[in-house]
Amino acid sequence: MSSVPETMRVSVLRGVEDLAVEERPVPTPGPDEVLVQVGSVGTCGSDVHYYRHGRIGDFVVREPLVLGHEAGGHIVAVGADVPSSRVGERVSLEPGIPCRHCEMCREGTYNLCPDVRFFATPPIDGAFCEYVTLAADFAYAVPNDMSDDAAGLIEPLSVGVWANRKAGVGVGSSVLVAGAGPVGLLVTQVARALGASQVIVSDIDSTRLERASAAGATDVVSAGEPLPEGISVDAFVDCSGVTAAVTAGVPRVKPRGAVVLVGMGADEVALPVPVIQNRELVVTGTFRYANTWPQAIALASSGEVDLDSLVTAHVDLDHVVDALAPDPGAHHVKIMVRPGGV
Amino acid sequence: MSSVPETMRVSVLRGVEDLAVEERPVPTPGPDEVLVQVGSVGTCGSDVHYYRHGRIGDFVVREPLVLGHEAGGHIVAVGADVPSSRVGERVSLEPGIPCRHCEMCREGTYNLCPDVRFFATPPIDGAFCEYVTLAADFAYAVPNDMSDDAAGLIEPLSVGVWANRKAGVGVGSSVLVAGAGPVGLLVTQVARALGASQVIVSDIDSTRLERASAAGATDVVSAGEPLPEGISVDAFVDCSGVTAAVTAGVPRVKPRGAVVLVGMGADEVALPVPVIQNRELVVTGTFRYANTWPQAIALASSGEVDLDSLVTAHVDLDHVVDALAPDPGAHHVKIMVRPGGV
Amino acid sequence: MSSVPETMRVSVLRGVEDLAVEERPVPTPGPDEVLVQVGSVGTCGSDVHYYRHGRIGDFVVREPLVLGHEAGGHIVAVGADVPSSRVGERVSLEPGIPCRHCEMCREGTYNLCPDVRFFATPPIDGAFCEYVTLAADFAYAVPNDMSDDAAGLIEPLSVGVWANRKAGVGVGSSVLVAGAGPVGLLVTQVARALGASQVIVSDIDSTRLERASAAGATDVVSAGEPLPEGISVDAFVDCSGVTAAVTAGVPRVKPRGAVVLVGMGADEVALPVPVIQNRELVVTGTFRYANTWPQAIALASSGEVDLDSLVTAHVDLDHVVDALAPDPGAHHVKIMVRPGGV
Amino acid sequence: MSSVPETMRVSVLRGVEDLAVEERPVPTPGPDEVLVQVGSVGTCGSDVHYYRHGRIGDFVVREPLVLGHEAGGHIVAVGADVPSSRVGERVSLEPGIPCRHCEMCREGTYNLCPDVRFFATPPIDGAFCEYVTLAADFAYAVPNDMSDDAAGLIEPLSVGVWANRKAGVGVGSSVLVAGAGPVGLLVTQVARALGASQVIVSDIDSTRLERASAAGATDVVSAGEPLPEGISVDAFVDCSGVTAAVTAGVPRVKPRGAVVLVGMGADEVALPVPVIQNRELVVTGTFRYANTWPQAIALASSGEVDLDSLVTAHVDLDHVVDALAPDPGAHHVKIMVRPGGV
Repeated sequence: MSSVPETMRVSVLRGVEDLAVEERPVPTPGPDEVLVQVGSVGTCGSDVHYYRHGRIGDFVVREPLVLGHEAGGHIVAVGADVPSSRVGERVSLEPGIPCRHCEMCREGTYNLCPDVRFFATPPIDGAFCEYVTLAADFAYAVPNDMSDDAAGLIEPLSVGVWANRKAGVGVGSSVLVAGAGPVGLLVTQVARALGASQVIVSDIDSTRLERASAAGATDVVSAGEPLPEGISVDAFVDCSGVTAAVTAGVPRVKPRGAVVLVGMGADEVALPVPVIQNRELVVTGTFRYANTWPQAIALASSGEVDLDSLVTAHVDLDHVVDALAPDPGAHHVKIMVRPGGV
Repeated sequence: MSSVPETMRVSVLRGVEDLAVEERPVPTPGPDEVLVQVGSVGTCGSDVHYYRHGRIGDFVVREPLVLGHEAGGHIVAVGADVPSSRVGERVSLEPGIPCRHCEMCREGTYNLCPDVRFFATPPIDGAFCEYVTLAADFAYAVPNDMSDDAAGLIEPLSVGVWANRKAGVGVGSSVLVAGAGPVGLLVTQVARALGASQVIVSDIDSTRLERASAAGATDVVSAGEPLPEGISVDAFVDCSGVTAAVTAGVPRVKPRGAVVLVGMGADEVALPVPVIQNRELVVTGTFRYANTWPQAIALASSGEVDLDSLVTAHVDLDHVVDALAPDPGAHHVKIMVRPGGV
Repeated sequence: MSSVPETMRVSVLRGVEDLAVEERPVPTPGPDEVLVQVGSVGTCGSDVHYYRHGRIGDFVVREPLVLGHEAGGHIVAVGADVPSSRVGERVSLEPGIPCRHCEMCREGTYNLCPDVRFFATPPIDGAFCEYVTLAADFAYAVPNDMSDDAAGLIEPLSVGVWANRKAGVGVGSSVLVAGAGPVGLLVTQVARALGASQVIVSDIDSTRLERASAAGATDVVSAGEPLPEGISVDAFVDCSGVTAAVTAGVPRVKPRGAVVLVGMGADEVALPVPVIQNRELVVTGTFRYANTWPQAIALASSGEVDLDSLVTAHVDLDHVVDALAPDPGAHHVKIMVRPGGV
Repeated sequence: MSSVPETMRVSVLRGVEDLAVEERPVPTPGPDEVLVQVGSVGTCGSDVHYYRHGRIGDFVVREPLVLGHEAGGHIVAVGADVPSSRVGERVSLEPGIPCRHCEMCREGTYNLCPDVRFFATPPIDGAFCEYVTLAADFAYAVPNDMSDDAAGLIEPLSVGVWANRKAGVGVGSSVLVAGAGPVGLLVTQVARALGASQVIVSDIDSTRLERASAAGATDVVSAGEPLPEGISVDAFVDCSGVTAAVTAGVPRVKPRGAVVLVGMGADEVALPVPVIQNRELVVTGTFRYANTWPQAIALASSGEVDLDSLVTAHVDLDHVVDALAPDPGAHHVKIMVRPGGV
């Protein structure tokens, strides 16, 4: 561990819109853990929300918190029970470590573990820093030709993989995606990679719709107007969290189809129960993901999903504020934080 | 076919609250059909609704309509392509014949066939009459010791089987059932037969709750008050169609659990999207059933489900009005119409 | 129907290795049927087997039989219950019409219908002729830029789709395919289209292995030697029917993996029960396919699967023998019969 | 922990047919573990096999080994991370602790974890002793009215639950069970509890067949003769490990049916591939179980499965040899070892 310094630089959220870089000890990996030098970390809507509001629902930032949970890097040290051959391995980090003991964990749905410890969710620190420790099995090897940015963006890609699994997307599927932010773009890319013949994306922003087309959408529609007649899909994936988008989308789903609610928004949405009944629609939501990293890495490695194209800017630890509160006119998709410098 | 008369008596709905008995020709079975002498027919909420309002949603009674779709009886004649050995067979009738050619039919979800012809749904006549024809494969043999009443009630039992399938009920499951009408009671009985350890039934009517207890509910709760603390279930099956019951029930479902909307009610219900997301609940509805008769007959034959106990009165064809508009104080569950006389 | 002649030319198998072209009446479509002018028909191993041996298992050619069941063409007439707008539609034919009434049909597994009527399976005639009738819902529209050859080869592609479904192949899967004949090549192409990261193909013939590589195999191995060390896959699909290939492949499947037996060969194969148990392998076989045409057409339309590249020769009705008994040194993959002339 | 002594008595297998009682330190529970005072432990065929042969396949008894893995008892002490309120809890022990970190564990199929530590499997000691430690989450609370014997026999019941899950048994199923030893009897009881209408059990021993009838078999057949004509089932579960039973059973499975190989026997069994293909049978095996304890406890608690009736004798630690090498004429089903005395 000779090359690992004793202290590191960390971007800390001390309060609402109060970020500072601190010097902290580099953590020591536990027996089952690895120490990862962070190469790149994506900025997510939840990071922005904590920065602006200091809370998301019941999760309140009471102590200084390190944000960032979309991280790629490489292993620089390992705990006693981890093969030392992993040192040097380039990895993508799955940022939520479940308890491994509850019913949810043992049955394979560990994303629903009530005791999961998730990066950048109070009181667990995230990855806007130079080094993090993580359970060894949640640090996944990536090919050497995958960038650190892409390794970090395996996390939002996993959101897209999970949403598509819930939606049952496959060869020949038709899918309506509401919202062309990063998640909507990744849901679109994954749907196409899985063989969907038709992926219709709606958004109010024409720049975002252009990006959706580039991501493989077969049709794009303006969310400012009623959905065109004739749209009828096997699955509707809401990535907008906008009530109007949800209520517009549900009636366009065919019998037996799926409605997957990914975007966060209103506490309640009025859903058309007779439509759900008469078509036996399956309505569900997603909470993070489980067992998605291998497939997400496969999709990014094969080139079927392009993660690097989502990156529109890089910042270093001293400029995390520029990632969390960017110029709104700049139409960023993903701003990456590079703790080692841009 | 010597024993089959040329004409028969039929109870016809001629308009809102306008029933009359008419004499009509006995129908002739097509090549793939059987002619069934109807022994007993249950009265369903949809029959009552057509009687009172002349329509259900888009289905409007424009021509005289024969009601009744929960029928048992015995085969008295067969079409050219049906083995004559079936004459004399006692049968339960599945009352909806799908087109057999569309995608839904070919993939086994024939209840969603857009061209299904369903008894007592305009313009298709039902079974409040002495004889009906039916596709031979939708007339299922029942054991000789099963009553005609029970043979007819295999239909609502199928609703209960289907709801439990959608809810994923099995050994050790906990289930909350809202509404203790006939369907709620059957959902309860089936859940217990499938091994559910806990079945909690809510209703506003204490007589109905007593029936729920007799049907195997492990707990009953008054729907007039908030659900007690601590109720947490694997599945919630709404058989009430009451918005307040739905909104009360959903938050009581555990992570990964199912919400199955069986009861018909409001056109829209406000559902708590964050709960659906954070727990990845699966919300769906039921539209009739598919491929349920064999299991329903098995449950009724083995005694695990008791159908005869649901029957609270019998009427003949001249008194169908008493089945469709009974004394509300009598707390009927199922009134059976016996075309051949009570 | 003015353009449809009264008689047509038909290639008839009159006995073992006895083919002749006869003039027969053009059939008339039933109410639910279409009349298809056959554009191209693939030659399958079963056709070759009937030609050489006059039987396959219990199916014996007792009367003159028309072979050919991989057919594409266009609709020239329709029955009374089929929209006349379908005349002119280019179609791929699913060659087995199930009874639509049995348990298998109603539950969506119509390939297991005991009363299926399948082209070129005694006593049902096939498609080596100018015109055939078929149930309208089993004639699937194909894009205008799909060739008649490809429309016909949707049938063997369906075999590949079905095998991959049974094998559970998806993004990141590893698959071992034994046998690089037409079916093995299509299983390989489909596996890759579904996102398999690794598809290893074994065969004894180096020409076939070259074709496997062209079809997307990531590795090819000679079946004449033991499988190399280190091969460990999620699924093994046998398309060879060779006992040695099956027994070599099964032990290479990972825990929870699938073994799918597609190739026909020995009546019994000794399988390693402790391996099946200790890894909880799932071993199954395929019998034709069900509900595969839409996905197969989607795969061929999108270009993810290339069917035209499988075609190595064309013959007309007078030269069907050249398709059924080709020069073995020519290494044909698919020889297409074009009833209208090459 | 005042009531827990420092040493305990342990029955140790020192070599082939060489058992001795030793005094050993009572183990100390780790942070996530509980210390259980063992009330009763079933004797399994694998215990007998180790006693007689000193090995099962690759698992060889090289060091003294404690046998016994079907254990019930009560918690007498807990580790630091376990609620102290669990002291006194009566429990059934799931005897295999997986690594919780591998792909199999994280996806919910922890029985296939390559690093599982399983009681009484070299070099892991089992439960023929007064006290054992176990991961807290693998010690499941049982109702107070469940006997220690039954708490121990939840383990073989889990084998039966798992086999029935693999076989897809449900309401109305027909099942053929080969072998009426303890596992066959439990598979039978579970199948009936799940609603199977027909459970046919075969065995060569008439005493065992009588027990099968008492366990709920609807038919029993002598395995010494060919299976009677007309047996046709949805699932065949082999609990005999006898090649002739397997080869007799497979052809009796209906299309789409399941073959589940539970019994251990020959290294290879010749299976009829054309039958597997033409009927698309699913053949699989079981390796222990995963996530079965809650359902097994529910079945035993509700009385749907009767475990106590399987117990035919009790022995104390000094007489374990009588459990492992009983009088073969005594027709024992389950002999329970009671470390605290009979």
